[in-house]
Amino acid sequence: MVGPARMTVLVRLAYDGTDFSGYARQPAAQGVRTVQACLEDALASLYRQPVATRAASRTDAGVHALGQVVGFEAPLAIPMKGVVLGLLAKLPPDIGVLAAWEAEAPGGGPVEPRFWNLGKHYRYRIRTTARRVPQTHRGEWHLPRRLDVAAMQLAARHFHGEHDFAGFRAVGCQARTTVRRILAVDVDGGPAGDELPPDPACLPATDPEVITISVRGEAFLQNMVRIMVGTLVEVGTGRREPAAIADLLAAPDRRRSGATAPPQGLTLVEVLWPDPWPPPPRAPAAERDE
Amino acid sequence: MVGPARMTVLVRLAYDGTDFSGYARQPAAQGVRTVQACLEDALASLYRQPVATRAASRTDAGVHALGQVVGFEAPLAIPMKGVVLGLLAKLPPDIGVLAAWEAEAPGGGPVEPRFWNLGKHYRYRIRTTARRVPQTHRGEWHLPRRLDVAAMQLAARHFHGEHDFAGFRAVGCQARTTVRRILAVDVDGGPAGDELPPDPACLPATDPEVITISVRGEAFLQNMVRIMVGTLVEVGTGRREPAAIADLLAAPDRRRSGATAPPQGLTLVEVLWPDPWPPPPRAPAAERDE
Repeated sequence: MVGPARMTVLVRLAYDGTDFSGYARQPAAQGVRTVQACLEDALASLYRQPVATRAASRTDAGVHALGQVVGFEAPLAIPMKGVVLGLLAKLPPDIGVLAAWEAEAPGGGPVEPRFWNLGKHYRYRIRTTARRVPQTHRGEWHLPRRLDVAAMQLAARHFHGEHDFAGFRAVGCQARTTVRRILAVDVDGGPAGDELPPDPACLPATDPEVITISVRGEAFLQNMVRIMVGTLVEVGTGRREPAAIADLLAAPDRRRSGATAPPQGLTLVEVLWPDPWPPPPRAPAAERDE
Repeated sequence: MVGPARMTVLVRLAYDGTDFSGYARQPAAQGVRTVQACLEDALASLYRQPVATRAASRTDAGVHALGQVVGFEAPLAIPMKGVVLGLLAKLPPDIGVLAAWEAEAPGGGPVEPRFWNLGKHYRYRIRTTARRVPQTHRGEWHLPRRLDVAAMQLAARHFHGEHDFAGFRAVGCQARTTVRRILAVDVDGGPAGDELPPDPACLPATDPEVITISVRGEAFLQNMVRIMVGTLVEVGTGRREPAAIADLLAAPDRRRSGATAPPQGLTLVEVLWPDPWPPPPRAPAAERDE
């Protein structure tokens, strides 16, 4: 430990969001548990002074992560391996640290993960049978209904590219712009439906009947993935036609989109990070809200 | 619900063993939580009278299951779908019901899952880096050491076939015979070792560095899989030669075998169940202890 570090330290985090009131710290008076507060407590213990952090994504209460990226300015030059091992020792078991590295913004200065990330990869899991597998239960929306996966796949195609997602954001979303670029939406697995197979020998105990919706995009509005999933599920149940997605993007209206899918099915799989660093210059990004 | 059922009802269970003091019910005075007690409470609520159960395997405290098989004599003829849905509604979230079916022993009478199963498939997971992924943490032994997987694979071959496993059982094991037949031991994955990779972009956030040891066998002694795993790990660290397994099987002595691996890495993946039912007659099985 020799003097303050000059570069931003970035850490990649995984967490089980079940027992957190979201990523972002809330006023102490609220008395709620957040990932950010746990992380900053661990950092304060490691560096023996307060450390403020900045995350790529502010995940909602109950949402999980496998690849959140958080940056901070280290007051002491602890080697990166020591940062990982020190944090792992101080964090609760529902937060893991996967990696730590240092970076400097092009031209110097701190790295803002929210600005410099190239996008995010989210995954949503839906269990479509009455069965429950405790090992994965915390990361799934348990919806024992028969869903038409082919129709959901057709519908998902409409999300690709740049659209006005004003109909796919929380009522309280504060973003000034609502145009976002989606790189891919993939619907896989299922459909099992609510029937139990007659012959238990046919049931692969290790192969859960789960539909997975993967969404990759440059940036997202508040609750955007969960409303996309909720709307796709309404296509899967037959309540909407796949082409209805195109209408919702052409004439945005939150009241006409689907319900917001519950948080426990959603995981921030990866924050797409520039490699190599620093990235080549780019045009100013659209406002990057989430 | 029309009169008592005549056949044994069998259910396939999954559970997260973290918060259980093992599968088997313990005297009420102990005040501990067990899977069997939770299941029998749910059955009593469903059938409105006490129901005694018999499991294929008595998993230890902290051990998980994806395919435990439990049988009971139903006092009322509830359809199988109702048994599954009724139990799912009454059981805690760390127990799941995957299937229910009815069977009669050849010649009539109740089916004893412990006798009629054809064997068991266990899986043991070891995370070999300092990293922690909360989503899978409860089902892993966290052992940040570099393990020689090739040596472990060589060693595992010695377990195949019929051997005297007296050196691979708990000191308190009550089984009268100690010869058991192992069908397969497969070691996969790793080795990551305790080093953190220098470039975080190389780290696949969704691809944990885990070694998996799969063990299939006809029957097992108490703690047998965990002692096998503990001994294989000592081969992986270089403390023992792969050929040492052959010596331990030829001249059994619990004091010379490896340490018992911790329970949280072990999952009873499947109870191998006869399909079709009833199975063809077979010679009397060796004592089937676990």
